Amino acid sequence: SASLSMEELHEAWPVLSIDERLEGFRLLPSSVADDFFLGLSAREQAELILHLPTSERRTWVRLLPPDDLADLVQALEPEQAEALLSQLDDASRREVNVLLAYAEDDAGGLMNPRFARVRPDMTIDEAIGYLRKQAREKVETVYYAYALDAEQRLQGVLSLRQLFQAASDKKVADVMQHDVITVSENTDQEVVSQLFTEHGFMALPVLDEQNRMKGIVTVDDIVDVVQEEATEDIQKVGGMEALEAPYFEVGFFGMLKKRIGWLLVLFLGQMLTATAMSSFEGAIERAVVLSLFVPLIISSGGNSGSQASTLIIRALALGEMRLKDWWRVARREVLSGLVLGIVLGAVGLGRIMVWQSMSGAYGDHAFLLGCAVALSVVGVVTFGTLAGSMLPLVLRRFGFDPASASAPFVATLVDVSGVVIYFSVASLLLRGTLL
Amino acid sequence: SASLSMEELHEAWPVLSIDERLEGFRLLPSSVADDFFLGLSAREQAELILHLPTSERRTWVRLLPPDDLADLVQALEPEQAEALLSQLDDASRREVNVLLAYAEDDAGGLMNPRFARVRPDMTIDEAIGYLRKQAREKVETVYYAYALDAEQRLQGVLSLRQLFQAASDKKVADVMQHDVITVSENTDQEVVSQLFTEHGFMALPVLDEQNRMKGIVTVDDIVDVVQEEATEDIQKVGGMEALEAPYFEVGFFGMLKKRIGWLLVLFLGQMLTATAMSSFEGAIERAVVLSLFVPLIISSGGNSGSQASTLIIRALALGEMRLKDWWRVARREVLSGLVLGIVLGAVGLGRIMVWQSMSGAYGDHAFLLGCAVALSVVGVVTFGTLAGSMLPLVLRRFGFDPASASAPFVATLVDVSGVVIYFSVASLLLRGTLL
Ligand SMILES: [Mg+2]
Ligand SMILES: [Mg+2]
Ligand SMILES: [Mg+2]
Ligand SMILES: [Mg+2]
Ligand SMILES: [Mg+2]
Ligand SMILES: [Mg+2]
Ligand SMILES: [Mg+2]
Ligand SMILES: [Mg+2]
Ligand SMILES: [Mg+2]
Ligand SMILES: [Mg+2]
Ligand SMILES: [Mg+2]
Ligand SMILES: [Mg+2]
Ligand SMILES: [Mg+2]
Repeated sequence: SASLSMEELHEAWPVLSIDERLEGFRLLPSSVADDFFLGLSAREQAELILHLPTSERRTWVRLLPPDDLADLVQALEPEQAEALLSQLDDASRREVNVLLAYAEDDAGGLMNPRFARVRPDMTIDEAIGYLRKQAREKVETVYYAYALDAEQRLQGVLSLRQLFQAASDKKVADVMQHDVITVSENTDQEVVSQLFTEHGFMALPVLDEQNRMKGIVTVDDIVDVVQEEATEDIQKVGGMEALEAPYFEVGFFGMLKKRIGWLLVLFLGQMLTATAMSSFEGAIERAVVLSLFVPLIISSGGNSGSQASTLIIRALALGEMRLKDWWRVARREVLSGLVLGIVLGAVGLGRIMVWQSMSGAYGDHAFLLGCAVALSVVGVVTFGTLAGSMLPLVLRRFGFDPASASAPFVATLVDVSGVVIYFSVASLLLRGTLL
Repeated sequence: SASLSMEELHEAWPVLSIDERLEGFRLLPSSVADDFFLGLSAREQAELILHLPTSERRTWVRLLPPDDLADLVQALEPEQAEALLSQLDDASRREVNVLLAYAEDDAGGLMNPRFARVRPDMTIDEAIGYLRKQAREKVETVYYAYALDAEQRLQGVLSLRQLFQAASDKKVADVMQHDVITVSENTDQEVVSQLFTEHGFMALPVLDEQNRMKGIVTVDDIVDVVQEEATEDIQKVGGMEALEAPYFEVGFFGMLKKRIGWLLVLFLGQMLTATAMSSFEGAIERAVVLSLFVPLIISSGGNSGSQASTLIIRALALGEMRLKDWWRVARREVLSGLVLGIVLGAVGLGRIMVWQSMSGAYGDHAFLLGCAVALSVVGVVTFGTLAGSMLPLVLRRFGFDPASASAPFVATLVDVSGVVIYFSVASLLLRGTLL
């Protein structure tokens, strides 16, 4: 019969319907079907499981370590979750139920309760033997072995490499590292992932309030966390709410809901540009030519503001700056804004003078008009850069997500102020000539 | 004397000068200084190394596995690199020189040539003994053991867990998995990282063209790759070139260079709005009120376009869609744009009618004006959504980075078309009344 490689199925997967996915899955050689299943996201595993006959479900569910099983259960509807849990053996069910109590994006929601443990007073040879026994039973990840006392409190850690390198008759306590970096059950996954990137760990132990070790977070799950958090930020920077599923898996109306909110807020905000412009209606009537440059000027502020806010949002997410660096950032960004604004302003002035010399399109006061445009660009770009860089810090300061300072949000903010800056500059400079 | 914890130093690190960093580093207890050093980025390690006395450098350099050492060397100026390499023992120097031949963002540039190897015909007990010997000598990561034949060609792989679980007298070949997913030396890091996220691997073997195994890429380094690629994309989405270093480590002028290019391109592009508007100067003269709504209308297109492009850029980066799905995307986005545009347009019409009933600001033809605005918003938002979603796909199609379809780029594109759409709709609808 027909057969399919893992690679081929992976390639087509995102755009397949559930029936096609099921069909493809059944065509996989049995030697790779396990790996394929393990590589799927919890959402995809859940979808697949639900479409398999009840009799087959148990085999697949058994493949999953408890942390991934908990994720799968969380991706199910309550009744389906109930049904699946009832199919587990008692020990697994208890394990998963403990994990389900944690928030999905906390260390507790990421951790695997099955880790390799040794006792500090074991010899190296005893420890290796003990680890082999644990591996045979259930432990998934053997990269570090954790030395626990009788109360399950963490006393130290050894990498497998240290264990293998040490002389057979030494004690675990002599070889292990005592000073261990740990996280608590409720540490947010973003903080956890920063610890991984800062230190290059393969796993981090999770402790409860009594310092008892509850599990380990492993670096393979951190890759997903980093992707997820970056996706959230990138979508927010684009001016929408973060999606909870891949593009094609979000329904049409679900997608609209994620987009319309910010669009409405921004639209209502943009209406202030109409209000601002109407207060300068007289000036526009006297010199229609002024209106031609409105989009050009306000957009340059929006563009420089988008750059600045995106830059700061990412620097904050990567832990490259802290709130208290705001003054250093502000100083630097104002200066950048000034330089960028002067360059753009000069180009704008040049453009107007070239057009004027070619066609006379801008009338007698072209140079003054050009100066008004150039000066406005300097003002708007400087303001845009400053506003764009400070907004993420202000949001973080008041407990909001800095990534909400999206490119369109900053652009809208700067558009409104840009209209005011432009017409004010023009009124000052052109009074008695154009106006 | 004063002492500092690893946590405290990490927290302050990003904003410290090199002298402060050096001072802080010397204050660390020696038990954690190693870990701290290993946790730094290659750039930071290089900076620190250069400011240490030559006599101390060797100790720190020795800590690093070859892949990280190659990264450090790549972060140095050529003469400094030369000097450092000359301090290494012959074996390490040879190892590093081999790695330096690879591009930084290829699998070869990520891989560690020290991996755990066994022979297919060993018994499990022999294999474990052999691994212990390798761990003592040099192997950094023991998570999988790779079974190689006499020509170093990869025959299979076993996880440490499988090794530990198996009966002592079985052969490696009986237990190992034969069907192994591998990458070639020149596979791009983005592709490598997608394999890790798709399959949840801890490590991937790297083969040369003769299928000889050259090294492994480990998941801890993939965390950095994922962060780096997301940072690149997020900065590009914000409308600038990607930075190569953290915010505070990029010099003032280096930062300007990353920002001015796109700002200039966008500014020149935005000038077309002035050109477009000047061809409607007559209409604006007759009805100044028209000009008031220009920023509102064109921005709604820019905002919806930013959403769409960001969404598609991320979906492409995560492998959630392929080029050939473009038609499905186009259909869906046009429909979304229509619905979003109708909602915003209705709000816009409502706003004009409310203002009109309160103040009569928009004169006799307020309703017609409102309809022109509403219809333009529908057109502009639909066009913005479509353009924003297709642009990243077009860029990818022609071999460019989809992330260059930044929010400001799309906004500028849509601003220009928005002016044309608005004044065309207005001309049609208001001829004989306002115009
Ligand atoms: Mg989340
Ligand atoms: Mg979980
Ligand atoms: Mg989060
Ligand atoms: Mg896990
Ligand atoms: Mg996983
Ligand atoms: Mg976040
Ligand atoms: Mg790069
Ligand atoms: Mg490298
Ligand atoms: Mg790349
Ligand atoms: Mg490495
Ligand atoms: Mg590393
Ligand atoms: Mg990229
Ligand atoms: Mg705009």
